[in-house]
Amino acid sequence: MADRVQEILSWYSSDNAGTKTNIARLLRHGKLAGTGKLVILPVDQGFEHGPARSFAVNPGGYNPLYHFQLAIDAGCNAYAAPLGFLEAGASQYAGRIPLILKLNSHDSLHDDKDPMPSVTGSVSDALRLGCVAVGFTIYPGSSHCNAMYEQLREIAEDAKNCGLAVVVWSYPRGSALSKEGETAIDVVAYAAQIAAQLGAHVIKVKLPSAQLEQAAAKKVYEAAKIPITTLTERVKHVVQSAFDGRRIVIFSGGAKSEDQNVFAEARAIRDGGGFGSIIGRNSFQRPKAEAITFLHTIMGIYSGEMQ
Amino acid sequence: MADRVQEILSWYSSDNAGTKTNIARLLRHGKLAGTGKLVILPVDQGFEHGPARSFAVNPGGYNPLYHFQLAIDAGCNAYAAPLGFLEAGASQYAGRIPLILKLNSHDSLHDDKDPMPSVTGSVSDALRLGCVAVGFTIYPGSSHCNAMYEQLREIAEDAKNCGLAVVVWSYPRGSALSKEGETAIDVVAYAAQIAAQLGAHVIKVKLPSAQLEQAAAKKVYEAAKIPITTLTERVKHVVQSAFDGRRIVIFSGGAKSEDQNVFAEARAIRDGGGFGSIIGRNSFQRPKAEAITFLHTIMGIYSGEMQ
Amino acid sequence: MADRVQEILSWYSSDNAGTKTNIARLLRHGKLAGTGKLVILPVDQGFEHGPARSFAVNPGGYNPLYHFQLAIDAGCNAYAAPLGFLEAGASQYAGRIPLILKLNSHDSLHDDKDPMPSVTGSVSDALRLGCVAVGFTIYPGSSHCNAMYEQLREIAEDAKNCGLAVVVWSYPRGSALSKEGETAIDVVAYAAQIAAQLGAHVIKVKLPSAQLEQAAAKKVYEAAKIPITTLTERVKHVVQSAFDGRRIVIFSGGAKSEDQNVFAEARAIRDGGGFGSIIGRNSFQRPKAEAITFLHTIMGIYSGEMQ
Amino acid sequence: MADRVQEILSWYSSDNAGTKTNIARLLRHGKLAGTGKLVILPVDQGFEHGPARSFAVNPGGYNPLYHFQLAIDAGCNAYAAPLGFLEAGASQYAGRIPLILKLNSHDSLHDDKDPMPSVTGSVSDALRLGCVAVGFTIYPGSSHCNAMYEQLREIAEDAKNCGLAVVVWSYPRGSALSKEGETAIDVVAYAAQIAAQLGAHVIKVKLPSAQLEQAAAKKVYEAAKIPITTLTERVKHVVQSAFDGRRIVIFSGGAKSEDQNVFAEARAIRDGGGFGSIIGRNSFQRPKAEAITFLHTIMGIYSGEMQ
Amino acid sequence: MADRVQEILSWYSSDNAGTKTNIARLLRHGKLAGTGKLVILPVDQGFEHGPARSFAVNPGGYNPLYHFQLAIDAGCNAYAAPLGFLEAGASQYAGRIPLILKLNSHDSLHDDKDPMPSVTGSVSDALRLGCVAVGFTIYPGSSHCNAMYEQLREIAEDAKNCGLAVVVWSYPRGSALSKEGETAIDVVAYAAQIAAQLGAHVIKVKLPSAQLEQAAAKKVYEAAKIPITTLTERVKHVVQSAFDGRRIVIFSGGAKSEDQNVFAEARAIRDGGGFGSIIGRNSFQRPKAEAITFLHTIMGIYSGEMQ
Repeated sequence: MADRVQEILSWYSSDNAGTKTNIARLLRHGKLAGTGKLVILPVDQGFEHGPARSFAVNPGGYNPLYHFQLAIDAGCNAYAAPLGFLEAGASQYAGRIPLILKLNSHDSLHDDKDPMPSVTGSVSDALRLGCVAVGFTIYPGSSHCNAMYEQLREIAEDAKNCGLAVVVWSYPRGSALSKEGETAIDVVAYAAQIAAQLGAHVIKVKLPSAQLEQAAAKKVYEAAKIPITTLTERVKHVVQSAFDGRRIVIFSGGAKSEDQNVFAEARAIRDGGGFGSIIGRNSFQRPKAEAITFLHTIMGIYSGEMQ
Repeated sequence: MADRVQEILSWYSSDNAGTKTNIARLLRHGKLAGTGKLVILPVDQGFEHGPARSFAVNPGGYNPLYHFQLAIDAGCNAYAAPLGFLEAGASQYAGRIPLILKLNSHDSLHDDKDPMPSVTGSVSDALRLGCVAVGFTIYPGSSHCNAMYEQLREIAEDAKNCGLAVVVWSYPRGSALSKEGETAIDVVAYAAQIAAQLGAHVIKVKLPSAQLEQAAAKKVYEAAKIPITTLTERVKHVVQSAFDGRRIVIFSGGAKSEDQNVFAEARAIRDGGGFGSIIGRNSFQRPKAEAITFLHTIMGIYSGEMQ
Repeated sequence: MADRVQEILSWYSSDNAGTKTNIARLLRHGKLAGTGKLVILPVDQGFEHGPARSFAVNPGGYNPLYHFQLAIDAGCNAYAAPLGFLEAGASQYAGRIPLILKLNSHDSLHDDKDPMPSVTGSVSDALRLGCVAVGFTIYPGSSHCNAMYEQLREIAEDAKNCGLAVVVWSYPRGSALSKEGETAIDVVAYAAQIAAQLGAHVIKVKLPSAQLEQAAAKKVYEAAKIPITTLTERVKHVVQSAFDGRRIVIFSGGAKSEDQNVFAEARAIRDGGGFGSIIGRNSFQRPKAEAITFLHTIMGIYSGEMQ
Repeated sequence: MADRVQEILSWYSSDNAGTKTNIARLLRHGKLAGTGKLVILPVDQGFEHGPARSFAVNPGGYNPLYHFQLAIDAGCNAYAAPLGFLEAGASQYAGRIPLILKLNSHDSLHDDKDPMPSVTGSVSDALRLGCVAVGFTIYPGSSHCNAMYEQLREIAEDAKNCGLAVVVWSYPRGSALSKEGETAIDVVAYAAQIAAQLGAHVIKVKLPSAQLEQAAAKKVYEAAKIPITTLTERVKHVVQSAFDGRRIVIFSGGAKSEDQNVFAEARAIRDGGGFGSIIGRNSFQRPKAEAITFLHTIMGIYSGEMQ
Repeated sequence: MADRVQEILSWYSSDNAGTKTNIARLLRHGKLAGTGKLVILPVDQGFEHGPARSFAVNPGGYNPLYHFQLAIDAGCNAYAAPLGFLEAGASQYAGRIPLILKLNSHDSLHDDKDPMPSVTGSVSDALRLGCVAVGFTIYPGSSHCNAMYEQLREIAEDAKNCGLAVVVWSYPRGSALSKEGETAIDVVAYAAQIAAQLGAHVIKVKLPSAQLEQAAAKKVYEAAKIPITTLTERVKHVVQSAFDGRRIVIFSGGAKSEDQNVFAEARAIRDGGGFGSIIGRNSFQRPKAEAITFLHTIMGIYSGEMQ
């Protein structure tokens, strides 16, 4: 199993040993340690959607320590959150779970057709909190994408100099895209490619639909007969679009959903060669014991122990 | 009583000893020393509303020394003001009352739908003036919120490195919100969460109304039956929204009001688990002796000595 | 042959020895080494047009290593790509092909009349990846041209201090120009001049048409009877416009086209005194063996070995 | 009583409010709060003399937390120690006792006629640990005194910019002085003057003997008939030598001694206008309860509650 | 077992979460993970004594990869080496064993009574190589000790800001000490204290003899009847001298010795409350299989699995 980690690390040959060490820490922690698969717990919804929408359904989640403990108890590979949530527990949980500091966030108290998150933390914060990586969200398709790409460029350069890994949330969004277009297969594949070109080590995208958003892309997909009918095929195409599978691509779980749907998605991710999931709301918006069972099932699907 | 201060400090485990020392100084000063409760005197209305609107009713307040002396005589935990007001008295009153330097302010000589305060002081100023904390106002909901959050990020990083505490005034405001929405319970709770995620040690919000502003939030509040009928319930919810009570949340007094209203509010803050009040206009816009009696009553309510 | 390289280097007499060394590396590598001619493989289409549009027709190209190998096997002078693509192979291929790091890129998930690429890499990145040059795109005619020129200024200053060469993609574009005007001879010649004046060592433009876009220019072209009927004449004029041939000007291949057209263009570039081609899509959007034959033909045209 | 603190602060009129605040914190803490007198617990003997010589007689003192607790329980004004000892407890004891970070120390594993301490901490360390002051030792009379004075100059400038106070241990020592000369009245008075001229806010010297070390000084003392027969007279002369009493001068307790001697010395310090004592070995080299009684007696002498 | 790690981390309460995380990584890796005990493989003898003296007896050790593999195969907690040795393998072994970058070293091509190592690496190097800690050697007793202490001060401040741990090799040495005095119990205990006061997180000293070197210390040891007859007693005293056991103290193995001696020493370290060993020459100066058996025996002694 450890060989798979070595293989993955070989794709990051321009990175220094520090960054490789931190990628390895992600891949060698938790129940999926050594499999090359990841399940990450992200909790930025308090900032993104507000506290009640995030935590009222399972009020333990108001407490920042809850999420550290959940990620540890479930055997996740890492826990990702904004500055405040990590500051609130990083000392108590020092060394018990790899941490990813999300360096930008966007709240929903105002609505923007072309949203732009705020930078809310720094690479120095990530070092003082003992994180293995920084996380950064870009919205390809937004009229502010330049500003985001350039913030990311600077942060990624800093992070890499300090031996940290860079995780990019690449979420197409903005006035140029239809709502459905945000998860269209051509758009999601493009978003994965952009994140990879910007130097991301780990790329997080949404699961793509079979829709084709851009006319110029549509022609090519049809001409080349790129198979995008099943979710497995689409995952495969997205992974291919991220340097032919030579970058770690994980998929977000999205809003709370039926367990069977999530498990089916996990199977598609696995069978399409995806590297795993980042599952927030489906994890912390239910009782802890239930969440752990749920996460263990997903991990079992990824490790092959479950069908 | 001292145990309550130790307990509160334990929530700030990622902070250095310097920041913990300054939080402790806030909590161990004045009539409420050691109770875990705070009454802070803020005087930034001269800048925010103009001198006559602020001080004409009690002209002693034109003199910056008046407010230092009022905060001391009333046994407040701290006095908060912009650069000029603190510079005018910090030397004379050195060591007699913890000071909070407000690092941004907004005047009302021009009107903005989406206001953006000016940064008017620095962390260095706070050190040379002997402050225990810096204060910073954000307006979640403003189209300028990114700029404010990013200014705060940088200031907070500096302040924490220098061992200062960070107090955030989180006041939802801007074209995306209705006037009533600024104090809607969902919005105030969200504002508290944002400040906490941005790394605030002390969070100041307005007392929330029972209104629900955002449609997406409304659904959740109703589905989860979050109790928000009484002010006590709403305070409880706001405190919960700030890391399940693991951040100090205090409430602003707002415009001059009937004393009995303010006392009723203080009881609700106390019973809802709030940490205290920051009371400007209700304090300095009346004769000093009367103000002291008024503040002592509030402190008595918080300490439990009064009903 | 070596004299031609010395002659070319003599035009860059204000540059430091490091920059001259790196220009020489470009000119002394590959099948065209020493001829003063260049064929460069650029692969930024994944970012610019999306992965499927770029790579679906020849899926090997999804893999970043494919392009390094193609450039080496074809005997190109250099390989140019954005950060992610270079990071993915620079270590494995260290020292086997001169690299050019493209420092800005523009995606097509949103459409702008006046486009503005994002800065996605740095001079430091170019140094750590072992590049001989940085590449930068400007859009003369865009309302954002100032921002691009000023970014280039800063990057070029840095690059030259570090002994790197500067390659400028000068592509007229923006609301002030008609679509045909983007390749009008007056406009392309002007674009070459602007890049040269901004300090570019190597200038990349599109092949110009015989159209004249600007009225003021048109008058002069007609009065002076500047020969622009044949492509050879137009290439000659563009080269003249870049400091009378004392800057290296290369031409882009554009979209996939009939081979015979491309070869005819190469002859015109050669006969007009152009320095070579930068050929992306016509190279990597076909099977590798075929691409190599294709590129060798172009190189043969430039070296004079082929007609 | 508070007036005495105000009076003392008035001597430091060139200092910023931050430094005055921290001097005030020293003067307003512990059993002697507000009296203008100080008893400080210093524990740098572990570094200066070695652990067994310092702590074996009362092994609780090996534990760094012991000294924080002793200083608090005895009601000292402050606790002073090197970096390691403060780091080991500053968080747990945050805000409970003013701290002084000793920024240089000298060990006794090698013997130097002209000793030179090492700088072992920084002003940044003092801020992050929440200290009110930095401490620095100079050895006037040492051939290395220039180096020490210049280190102190730089540290004091930094500390004052950051609102910290500067405490100088001024201990004449070096090949130019006889062993007895180190505590000769002319030498001690001179050492106090040097520290004051270097910008110290608080000056710590040893109790002077009646000896006169320097011939040039001796002439003057005799001609001017400066009274130096009693310890009280000598303390008075030293205090006068530190800007006519306008700088806080405290006296060190020296090696473990008979309690009655120490009390007699305290009376002389009090009657001579000294500002207090810094008492290490006589405090922590005995059982804690006994130490507290002992320190309370000294405090009682200073406050006038005891004879 | 994990509780022991938490307990140890609680001693470092002034450190940021990053430093705590890296201390935890040391304590949670290898066969002794979670026991609170450490066995570290250090290989700086190539620099300190020369290659043949270090590696000729077991020539595999000339290869830097040998030592990474040995530390991994033996289940050590960490591997410590100078810049060159770590650079030679940190990428290949990324994430497989915690690394400590030794930041200063001393060669033996010249002889100094008062030696002074050279600084040969930086905190930035440690970050880019993915290390958990920096290592630094001081020679208390050397006439150059000031320079070393001050280098360490600066490095430790940097390292702590970046979330790294600081390991100090505290080896008394210099013209002021007799050869036997370098390991005299009073001197070794003093060396441990100095390292702790300088802010070390992990302290490495030599095993002490029963000799007493310094006259002033001898008096105290005899008066206080400090038990130093057995090695266990002496280890206990050294651990006590490092903040009463609140700092991690490990002992060096010294030159190649009879296995039974080393095992006896390990038992004394364990029974005296020491935290483990750092064993170089006894590990790599024998065949690998034998070395692993040898190290496993020591680990078994520490974990209690062996007598």
